[in-house]
Amino acid sequence: MLENKNDQRTPISDLGEFGLIDHLTKGISTIHSDTIKGIGDDAAVLKMNKNEVQVVTTDLLLEGVHFDLAYMPLKHLGYKAVVVNLSDVCAMNAQPKQITVSIAVSNRFTVEAIEELYEGIKLACQKYQVDLVGGDTTSSTTGLVISITALGTCLSGDVIYRSGAKVNDLLVISGDIGAAYLGLQVLEREKQVFAVNPKAQPDLEPYHYLVERQLKPEARTDIIKLLADLKVKPTAMIDISDGLSSEILHLSKASKVGCSIYEDKLPLDPQVITTCEELNLDSTTIALSGGEDYELLFTIDQKDFDTIKGNPNLTIIGHICAPEGGINLITRAQSQIPIIARGWNPLKNETHD
Amino acid sequence: MLENKNDQRTPISDLGEFGLIDHLTKGISTIHSDTIKGIGDDAAVLKMNKNEVQVVTTDLLLEGVHFDLAYMPLKHLGYKAVVVNLSDVCAMNAQPKQITVSIAVSNRFTVEAIEELYEGIKLACQKYQVDLVGGDTTSSTTGLVISITALGTCLSGDVIYRSGAKVNDLLVISGDIGAAYLGLQVLEREKQVFAVNPKAQPDLEPYHYLVERQLKPEARTDIIKLLADLKVKPTAMIDISDGLSSEILHLSKASKVGCSIYEDKLPLDPQVITTCEELNLDSTTIALSGGEDYELLFTIDQKDFDTIKGNPNLTIIGHICAPEGGINLITRAQSQIPIIARGWNPLKNETHD
Repeated sequence: MLENKNDQRTPISDLGEFGLIDHLTKGISTIHSDTIKGIGDDAAVLKMNKNEVQVVTTDLLLEGVHFDLAYMPLKHLGYKAVVVNLSDVCAMNAQPKQITVSIAVSNRFTVEAIEELYEGIKLACQKYQVDLVGGDTTSSTTGLVISITALGTCLSGDVIYRSGAKVNDLLVISGDIGAAYLGLQVLEREKQVFAVNPKAQPDLEPYHYLVERQLKPEARTDIIKLLADLKVKPTAMIDISDGLSSEILHLSKASKVGCSIYEDKLPLDPQVITTCEELNLDSTTIALSGGEDYELLFTIDQKDFDTIKGNPNLTIIGHICAPEGGINLITRAQSQIPIIARGWNPLKNETHD
Repeated sequence: MLENKNDQRTPISDLGEFGLIDHLTKGISTIHSDTIKGIGDDAAVLKMNKNEVQVVTTDLLLEGVHFDLAYMPLKHLGYKAVVVNLSDVCAMNAQPKQITVSIAVSNRFTVEAIEELYEGIKLACQKYQVDLVGGDTTSSTTGLVISITALGTCLSGDVIYRSGAKVNDLLVISGDIGAAYLGLQVLEREKQVFAVNPKAQPDLEPYHYLVERQLKPEARTDIIKLLADLKVKPTAMIDISDGLSSEILHLSKASKVGCSIYEDKLPLDPQVITTCEELNLDSTTIALSGGEDYELLFTIDQKDFDTIKGNPNLTIIGHICAPEGGINLITRAQSQIPIIARGWNPLKNETHD
């Protein structure tokens, strides 16, 4: 009925998620003086008052793309949907305060199923002391859609961007990495087993930590508090939900620097190591590209080294260098390999180079 | 694989959209002192600083539920998706300042198609002087999903809730109503004609206003400015996107009042009247239940009558009465008919009683 004026037909997969965002938001500028930071970080930053800024972030989760209800209980899904947004608030060094929750549901969901989802949402709100202040509820012709916006605040001088890393800063990561991805692999395997034999009783105990990291991740508000207590203000910060390799590239690009990450410093849980062996996967690759670990990656000035070193929640994994140095992994054998983004790309539906 | 612990299976259609929201958000309270108003109005209200509050609202739009790309050009869709959120900001008497935009797209969309969508989004941002500050871009296994969150500000004393209407206040509506719904009917009819004969050239000229109201609605920021200029502060306000009958019930319920609306006062465009005749529809029913007119419904104290009357942008359609009086339409024949919500309900997929 309407004429198609587009002669050009470029598949979205040509650009991928970040390419598409860059392409669409190219040249967008802001006009309000209280818009301090627009597109390009974990969250936007708005001026609230003389002393405080507000951060705003939003995430869209679709059934069949971001989650599979075959092994993701609705209550966990609700909890996780909140957490992934709070993690972005943390990555700005802010305290989460409010969320809005929009959902679209098809008629295959019952009221009781949506209650389960909301139980998880409310549980996360309670745990993280966040107010659920609004949203939208509508129908979907197919699967479940969840869109959450999270708001938080921090003192004006405390907000941390991706762009502040300086040459010789140290690269620090909270917690450990790779577990959430392996948790997903284990659950996917059980789903296949179940498809063949619905009476099979899965023994997930050896993978308990991995499965928990996948199904019930936490946002590192505790790390924000720890850093404040230690009086360490990172120079740059990002959450590593899309995988360490992808996020280190974002941070380095935004800060216009290079960096070296040491393979032997990557923090891995013992279950990650044993499960990688079992599944014949390279644990370094998993740690670099796994994704869905809602940990924080940040840079600190060398003067803070003594305060950070030895803290069981934090691991120094490398350092920032000049941009000419590139972004490299220093292997156990002391060889230097350029890091490329291999995180999961929902717009290419495959890992990407 | 996972045991279903839900024995009860209540279809969502039993509750409908507003019933489900009420059910899920029952008992939700807020803990942060800067959360002034949570769920239950057109937008949440947060404290920004000593003088100002921030309003936050979000809407989720799904292909096949909220729009049909057969007659909705992507550029118009982008524009409209922004406008529907800004309308909710207006309904709080606030000025829109920022939006975030999340989209999920399937691989049947090209980069050029998404560019079109963003052209419309950017156009709306430009027209309404709103900053696009963030969002999320991901893939969809089926149709297009758009989730927008809008933020705005107003002076602390100027924010208007649904709950402030008082007995004897006058009911006022901006613009005219019923046109957007008829625009949709006309477009649906053309779609059917096109399905039968793809060479048919639609003559939409007689329905120009109706189609424009459907495809390119505007948010009434001008009315917010007009009221400020006239120094009239409404006692209660709501946007009537879900249809006048549904919204008057929301306003009356929140304000714990009744009201009378006069059939002969309902502001109708001549095209609405002629098209209702042509399609054999009752224009009062369309005006009451049509929906998608992004106009404002508000109440004013009687002392403001002289300031409002005769303004071409505003129509006094009735007045507020005691709750015992009920919520009624006074027909041209002077009979009194209780108003029931017949707005479109996306969770029942039909008009509802």
